[in-house]
Order: sequence, then structure tokens, then C-alpha cells
Amino acid sequence: MEKINRYAMIMAGGRGERFWPLSTAARPKQVLSLVGGRPMLAQAVDRLKGFIPPERILIITSAALVDVSREAVPELPAANVIGEPCGRDTAAACALGAAVVRARCPEGAFCILTADHVIKPIARFQQILEHGFSVAERGDSLVTIGIKPVFPSTGFGYIDCGEVLEDGDVRVYKARRFVEKPDARTAENYVQSGHYLWNSGMFIWKAGTLLAALRQYEKPVYDMAIAMLPVVDTPAFESNLTSEYNRLGRISIDYAVMEKAPNIVTAAGDFEWYDVGSWPALEDHFEKDAAGNVIIGDGAVLDSSGNVVVSGNRVTALIGVKDLVVVHAEKATLICPKSRAQDVKQMVQQLARDARYADIL
Amino acid sequence: MEKINRYAMIMAGGRGERFWPLSTAARPKQVLSLVGGRPMLAQAVDRLKGFIPPERILIITSAALVDVSREAVPELPAANVIGEPCGRDTAAACALGAAVVRARCPEGAFCILTADHVIKPIARFQQILEHGFSVAERGDSLVTIGIKPVFPSTGFGYIDCGEVLEDGDVRVYKARRFVEKPDARTAENYVQSGHYLWNSGMFIWKAGTLLAALRQYEKPVYDMAIAMLPVVDTPAFESNLTSEYNRLGRISIDYAVMEKAPNIVTAAGDFEWYDVGSWPALEDHFEKDAAGNVIIGDGAVLDSSGNVVVSGNRVTALIGVKDLVVVHAEKATLICPKSRAQDVKQMVQQLARDARYADIL
Repeated sequence: MEKINRYAMIMAGGRGERFWPLSTAARPKQVLSLVGGRPMLAQAVDRLKGFIPPERILIITSAALVDVSREAVPELPAANVIGEPCGRDTAAACALGAAVVRARCPEGAFCILTADHVIKPIARFQQILEHGFSVAERGDSLVTIGIKPVFPSTGFGYIDCGEVLEDGDVRVYKARRFVEKPDARTAENYVQSGHYLWNSGMFIWKAGTLLAALRQYEKPVYDMAIAMLPVVDTPAFESNLTSEYNRLGRISIDYAVMEKAPNIVTAAGDFEWYDVGSWPALEDHFEKDAAGNVIIGDGAVLDSSGNVVVSGNRVTALIGVKDLVVVHAEKATLICPKSRAQDVKQMVQQLARDARYADIL
Repeated sequence: MEKINRYAMIMAGGRGERFWPLSTAARPKQVLSLVGGRPMLAQAVDRLKGFIPPERILIITSAALVDVSREAVPELPAANVIGEPCGRDTAAACALGAAVVRARCPEGAFCILTADHVIKPIARFQQILEHGFSVAERGDSLVTIGIKPVFPSTGFGYIDCGEVLEDGDVRVYKARRFVEKPDARTAENYVQSGHYLWNSGMFIWKAGTLLAALRQYEKPVYDMAIAMLPVVDTPAFESNLTSEYNRLGRISIDYAVMEKAPNIVTAAGDFEWYDVGSWPALEDHFEKDAAGNVIIGDGAVLDSSGNVVVSGNRVTALIGVKDLVVVHAEKATLICPKSRAQDVKQMVQQLARDARYADIL
């Protein structure tokens, strides 16, 4: 049963530079159909089907991406796609979400979700969310979803989990502390200890609980949310948001609240959770040919193996190459070894220094 | 001084599969501007400037390529671009040239040239041609242009040179024999001997001398030329050519005549003569960046060296790759190591088995 005081806010502000040349400033990763056939943003909405309806799903993105985001998820009311006039990191975005939810439903609770991941099975994901909401709604906890580490990643923050608060269908811990991305050795130790989970960036809280925490730990962000509260769903929203955001500095919700507040609990998210973080990640989501090539679109290979090819509207012919990423966008092509896929960001930065390339970045 | 009984015929029937995907059946290598800024066919015409005017330059190609060939060299009279209804190898093409030249100028001489090569300096090339023509015109020799071997190539036929007949500005030998493409060891021996030259496929002869040789050594081809003689430059040319060609088998001029006739002399062509034979050959004709990359068009590189990139109308971004060939055509892209560039033909054959690819081959 859908509960009418539950909302979701999907964070969709990222650039997705590592998916250049398909991902560009004007059409970033979250509006692309990289895997799963629909835009990642649409899939994030789909995952809530039967749990939270489109009318209560918010998307927060940059003002420049409001239109493409609305196109990617046409089932959402236009007013639910909120454009930030400038990037102020996640604390401001979460606070703005709290203002919108509270304005529409004074007792509302909402979850913060991302559009960057593949999550399955959906049923289990919703079960964890359901449990997280019920924990958040029953007291004054800030609920986070932690993911059991699959490997000692240095790319995520970790949650040090303490006392087990619930141990039914879903395990819930008291969070001892939030820690930032560790070095490799520290990550090893975390994983071996067995009581660290990845910080997924997914949170569940009552709007009021989050606002109370912000009031205590990050007053300027709290003040912004309170200032916005009366203009939610009014014509003044946009202009007020611009002046409020202009006053703020950048601060993440982890740093502003999660690393400080005592009332944090973690629901263990034991679903599959993949960050589709760069081109080689597509290998996990598409069928490979006999030589281990993933070819999305039209390609022909001769003595070539382990390549990831996004062929666009052309035919890509590979002869004698191994473990390459080849991606064609409308006006640009990327070629790099899979092992160098992280350096696509650096290439984008290099190209950005030349005004000629503005329309391909 | 241009002599009005001198003609040239440029053989331009090749497919140029090794330049796929830019070279296709409909727009093969000779009409592409791979190097030197103009189509290779136009450059072959340009090389004759001041020596043989466009009115006396013939191009022989396949019927399907007559239109693109005329477009590539608009300065030639349309009637000078001759389309063969089917491929019958070089003996028939040379014989047809002899028929056309003889019909227009009974005492005419002509040279056979190719469109596949870069030749320089042009002044020296014309000097050799001039000398070759004068030798051919003064007696009944079949003159060939031999090229001093630069390396023991197994890709060319060789001419075993005997007695030095002339040793002035241009050295002319009696040709002892024509030999077909040798194996590696034989090629070594040829080059070490000092008296073998590469068979360049360039010949100079009076139309009458060639026809006499064909009459003796390859009667069916001679008969075709004699049958065509009265219809040259008449509306019956095309249909008669089709019925005549249909009767012929395939035979090369080397095999039909040059390996048999006694009256062959070789002028030593001591100009630079490069077969632009496959993508890596472009390296010799374009400036390299500091890391040894040749990028034709718009490209960006990061930690990449020794690559040959033809970027077409897009931007090609390379990260961490070495010694690759990357070529974008309108609808297809090729990626292979330079060392595998010869296998492009195999890729074309592989693609040809699938009807979907008809429009990119």
C-alpha cells in the first residue's frame, strides 16, 4: 500500500564526464539510456513503481537540465523537476527537498535516491525502503542505506555500523560514524572488519527530522530551506531559490550532517547495487560475443577480444585489437584501453580548454 | 614542347579495398584525396602538365566508375574517360587504349600510367617519360619504366635488366626478362644483384607496336582492339565494347606480352615512387605531432603515440593508445593496429557476406 506522506527525491545533478562523448553538459549521463533501455533517471523512477507514485517523486538537477530531465521522465509533473540555479552540493539539495516535501505534506518523509546506479531486484530494494521509511517515521532517526562491500573500494565513503537495532527481514544498525573515501589499506581493513558498509548516498528521513539536524549543524542551509518553505509551488519559487542559493557555500550532506548527528541508523541494503561509473562497466550489462566483446549497435570484429564498443549510428570494424573502449557520439569518437577509462574526465578537461569543442562537451 | 602524337592512358580500375572505409566500391581510392589534396586520379593527370594535355589523356576504369572519375578530373573531355563493361585485366585495357589512340592518331604513341602512386619530382618523371617516348617512337620497342628497388619487396614484379643501351641523362637497358612477384629470399637476391628493377606497371609504346605484339602473343585481345578501332568516338563504342569484352578471358599485359616479347627495353625511373598502398603509408605524407601521431582532421590525444587517424567530420579523442589506425568514413569506422592494416581487405570480404553492409563497402 502506498502511503501518501512518503516522497522520494532523486539527485540528478551530475555531469557524467566519464561517459563522454555520449554524455555531454547538455545531455548528461542520467538522461542517457546507457543500460536497461530507458534513461537512467527514468529507471530510478521505475524502481519506485507501486511504492511511491510519480506525483510524489521529485527530481533535483541543475536549472540547465530541467528540460531534458522532464523529457526523460514525462510521467512526472513538471513542477516535480526542480532546477538548482547553481551547484551547492548535497546538503542544500536535501534541504530544498525537505522544504518542498514539508510544504506539500507537513508530516511527510522522503528518501534521497540517485540515478547513477543499477539496482536489482527491485522488490528487495522496495522492501528495504519500506523498512527504512517505517524506522524514520516512527522516531527521529536519519536513516541511511548501507551496502555490503563487494570489494575494498576506495571510491565510496563507509559507514561504521554499531549495535544491531533490528534483525528481521531487514537488518538495521546504529551508525557509529560516517567515514570519507579511505585509502586502499584502510579500505581493506574496513572490509575485513565486517562491520563497515558502503555509504550509498541513499537516505530516508522525515522532512522535519532533517530540518532539525540542519538547524543544529548547518544553519545557513537550514535558513535557506525555511525561507523557501512559503514559496514552494508558487511563482516566486525560482527567483527566491536563486537569491537563497547565491548566499550559500558548498557543503555535502555527509559533511554537514551525517558525520556529526548522533541519531543515524543504517538499513543494510542487500540488493545488487552497481555504480555504472565508466564505459567498462557496460560489460556487466550486455551480452558478450564469443571473444568477449560487448558491441552495442552495429560492429564487425576480426581477431579482436574484450572490447567495449558503442557504435552509435555507424558500423565499427575492429581488426586485431584487445580490451579497448570505442564510443561514437554524434560528432566525436573516443578510443582508449579499458584500463584508461577513468582518464576520460581528463580528456574532457583538455578539450574544454579549446572553445572549438564547446558543442561536443 | 608537347608532341601531338603522344597520349597517356591512366589505369584507374582498382577497388582500393585496403583504404576501406573511405574507399568503397562506389568511391574507390583513385577518386579520393588521400594525400596531396586532390584525388589521386587528378594528381596523375597533373603530373603530365606541360607534357601531355588533357585532350590526349585517357582514363580507363570500370563502367560503374566513369561518373565519379569524370567528377574527379573535370578538365578531361568526357569521351576520354572510358568505362570497361567488365574487368578483363590489363592486356585488354592496354589494347583498348591502343585502339583509341590509333583511331585518333594513326602514328600515335602512348604511355600507361597508374593512379596509385605518389611520384616526385615531377620534372624528373617527365624527363624519363620524354626519353621513353623518344625510344618507343624511334623504333619498335615496348618501353617499360623500371624503378630502382628501395627494399626487397615481395609485392612487385621485377625486370631483369641486361645490356645498357643508353647511358645519358636517362639510363636505358635491354630487358632480359620480366619476373613475377618473388618470395622473400629471391627478392633479396634480386636486389643484391644490382640488375633488377621493380616493374612499375608504367609502359610506353606506339599503338602499332603494342598491337603487333598482341597479334603475335595474345590474338583474342588483338582481335578485340581491331574490332573496336572503327567505332572509337562513335555511338556504337559502348555496346560493341560490351560484346567484345564478353568474349575475352582475363589476362595481364605482363603475362600476355611482357614476359614473352623480345623487343622490351627498360628506362630506369630514378624518381621517388611510392605506392600509397594502405593506411600506414599516410605517415610518409603528413606531418606528425610530437608523439608521432598523424591526425588528418580534428583529433585530441592524451598519452598516445604513433597513431594514424583520419577523423572525417568528427573529433577523434585518443587516450593511451599506440600505433593504431583509426579511420572514420560517413557510416563506418575502422580501428586496427598499423601492423594489421593489410587485413582490411579481409574485413571488407567479411562484411560483404552480409547484405546489410552493401552501402558501406
